[in-house]
Amino acid sequence: MKQVIEILRSNRDRALAEMIELVRIPSISPGLPHPEAIGEAADWLERRLQRTGMDEVRQLVVDGHNPVVWARKHVSDDLPTVLFYGHYDVMPADPLDEWESPPFEPEVRDGRLFGRGTADDKGQVLMHINAVEAYLKYKGALPVNVLFAIEGEEEEGSEGLEKLLDSHRELFTADIAVISDSPFFAADCPSVCYGLRGIATAEIRVEGPATDLHSGNYGGAIANPAEFLARILSELKDRDGRITIDGFYDDVLELSPSEREGFASLPFDENVFCRELGSEGPYGEPGFSTLERIWARPSLEINGITGGFGGEGSKTIVPAHATAKVSMRLVPNQKPDRVLELLEKHIREIAPPEVRVSVSLGHGGHPFLAPIDNPHVRSAFKAMERTFEGDVHYIRDGASIPIVASIDSKLGATCLLLGIDVPEGRIHGPNEMLIIDNFHRGTEMIAHLLELI
Amino acid sequence: MKQVIEILRSNRDRALAEMIELVRIPSISPGLPHPEAIGEAADWLERRLQRTGMDEVRQLVVDGHNPVVWARKHVSDDLPTVLFYGHYDVMPADPLDEWESPPFEPEVRDGRLFGRGTADDKGQVLMHINAVEAYLKYKGALPVNVLFAIEGEEEEGSEGLEKLLDSHRELFTADIAVISDSPFFAADCPSVCYGLRGIATAEIRVEGPATDLHSGNYGGAIANPAEFLARILSELKDRDGRITIDGFYDDVLELSPSEREGFASLPFDENVFCRELGSEGPYGEPGFSTLERIWARPSLEINGITGGFGGEGSKTIVPAHATAKVSMRLVPNQKPDRVLELLEKHIREIAPPEVRVSVSLGHGGHPFLAPIDNPHVRSAFKAMERTFEGDVHYIRDGASIPIVASIDSKLGATCLLLGIDVPEGRIHGPNEMLIIDNFHRGTEMIAHLLELI
Repeated sequence: MKQVIEILRSNRDRALAEMIELVRIPSISPGLPHPEAIGEAADWLERRLQRTGMDEVRQLVVDGHNPVVWARKHVSDDLPTVLFYGHYDVMPADPLDEWESPPFEPEVRDGRLFGRGTADDKGQVLMHINAVEAYLKYKGALPVNVLFAIEGEEEEGSEGLEKLLDSHRELFTADIAVISDSPFFAADCPSVCYGLRGIATAEIRVEGPATDLHSGNYGGAIANPAEFLARILSELKDRDGRITIDGFYDDVLELSPSEREGFASLPFDENVFCRELGSEGPYGEPGFSTLERIWARPSLEINGITGGFGGEGSKTIVPAHATAKVSMRLVPNQKPDRVLELLEKHIREIAPPEVRVSVSLGHGGHPFLAPIDNPHVRSAFKAMERTFEGDVHYIRDGASIPIVASIDSKLGATCLLLGIDVPEGRIHGPNEMLIIDNFHRGTEMIAHLLELI
Repeated sequence: MKQVIEILRSNRDRALAEMIELVRIPSISPGLPHPEAIGEAADWLERRLQRTGMDEVRQLVVDGHNPVVWARKHVSDDLPTVLFYGHYDVMPADPLDEWESPPFEPEVRDGRLFGRGTADDKGQVLMHINAVEAYLKYKGALPVNVLFAIEGEEEEGSEGLEKLLDSHRELFTADIAVISDSPFFAADCPSVCYGLRGIATAEIRVEGPATDLHSGNYGGAIANPAEFLARILSELKDRDGRITIDGFYDDVLELSPSEREGFASLPFDENVFCRELGSEGPYGEPGFSTLERIWARPSLEINGITGGFGGEGSKTIVPAHATAKVSMRLVPNQKPDRVLELLEKHIREIAPPEVRVSVSLGHGGHPFLAPIDNPHVRSAFKAMERTFEGDVHYIRDGASIPIVASIDSKLGATCLLLGIDVPEGRIHGPNEMLIIDNFHRGTEMIAHLLELI
């Protein structure tokens, strides 16, 4: 292993130069402002993977979608297969005038590489490729079978790859999936993320009179949809923040004492956290810390509420209807369909007869969890421990990454979320950057992981 | 009196022709699409009033406002003074393609005159002028002193006239004001309106985090402004529709048993009323009928609610803020300032500490009431009884007409709301019309009133 690491270290300049080359390609997917750049980035990666000594490198194209760059190195049927997932598409770079150096002219400043896509996700993709290449070149053979799937639509919902997972499942079948597209808990706190929340969305619509009515001519004598919507919304959670939908918590997998201890040991001050957000203070389900609430407890949030007059000044009406969009974040072992069913039932039960209430169920996404005691999760932890300074922590994330849930559920692979980005990496914003040392250490981490699996 | 009525009857064709002439002038005030038409209508009325034999006819102009056509006939300091109020401005005529005949080419169909401004308010203005003229011409002298104030900004808020009431109060000082700018309870139910509700508006804003937050990364751990706004709104009224603001009902003048009887005797079916509005059924403060709730009980309505994402699809955020616009309709003897103060205090008391809650107080307007047993109200009732078929009723109106409240409070005049429009007159809408027979009878009613006062 020492030699693999040495090769990687001697190749650091080349690795950085390559990252700069890839980041120069403005492969923005949302809105496709540079459609040719998508093809250019995919071709670049195809060529790059060919040089690593893969058995097979292809661009998989689903009609109307950006290509997925796919590669395979088969070693033996007896060895586990590792799928390295990443994406070459990037977010738009607006607002351009807030960038200190142009987004697609990567610049090194203070040990960081600035540019759109450095952290999200081109740098991390190259980390996988460089590690596999170095291992293969030095050792002659990989200790696992390897697959690459580098898509070009992650910032738009991964539709093309989702279709391929269904139609060409055999190309992606793996025991372990390594996904490096997430940040450390903090720059000095390397972390392995082993859980994500799922999601379920819905829209609640309350209808009253056929048209907006003059509040002088009708006010006081007609049920007001905005008022009844407010009543319904305040009956979804209690005053303390606990969701009151019957059966909502039934399937929730409780945190183990060791997980809670782990979360508590993280360098996190919930008061500072709230202050930085401009919020008055921690608030949420009683009996849980802020991190527990975000990572391991389900939530229900009103995402938007609209009804009646929203312009300047006043328009004294009883609105004809009012609508709220809500989303719930789910934790293992909640199922989006089941939760939506419970929400609908609850609203049907509390719906006042004075108005017409309807619920439109939206999309759902499953939560994801790779238990801490899973041996592959432990290997990932060890690989990170060997390469990064500071204690490594197990963390979860409150967000939902649909493609992770799909890889987990469709392929049955153990997903390892091994991102080496940092929270201040400003992905999606101006001055996105990757700490160059993290990039190099991350590459070594992947090399260690290949051997530890 | 018989002769006055005879004169009026012999002049019906001329009266109708004149109304047609006045309605032809497109004196729209909102947006002023035909600015010259405002002057044209004011000039037309000035000339018309000059022909009646007034002592003095003038156009009063406040800078930046449309002229108020003003006239005076002084008979004796010992006689009461009657101010006839009306307006010559009209609403825009959109949507034009829904008119069966062009809005400014008045057409008689089926005993009705169709055209913008026929009912609101040109026909009713001419009713006043024709009655005063006939009385003066036949009898040689009026039994009261008469003032006319015909403004050109009623559809825009009467700002110019309001200023004149303050700056030139002496020009408008009267004992009685006759305002014909409102409908009968029903076409076959002539009615004297003796009360209007006041109004007070406010905006409630709830602020949480400094920016919208990702509901995955923060959901469940941050107080959601939309949720807390919903809680606040559902604590302004109880489930039955009674306002829960402390002290809110303290000043409310209760209905007398005879008023309640009067309302109950009106041809009104609250279930039909609700059905026609598309509402599920009567709803409001317990212990009161629908008409009582609209006319004589205060109300609090959410006019609009906005917060977070309101577009198509879903955007899973915790919104930074949420806002509700509310308006209260007030009844005698509630005072807008006092009620707003109570609202603000109530919200301050129930405001949860997890969010920042602010209340912006909006405009206020006083309620209006001329008690049924006021002798002038009785005279109006009698004048209507003598000229219209069917039982005359005392009614109130739930809306607020600020100029009425101003005439009432600034001049101390007893306001008589003697409109002869009908609910199906479609004022402000396409195919506005005035029943021609109501116009003629209304003119006779005003003549009778002059003598009854």
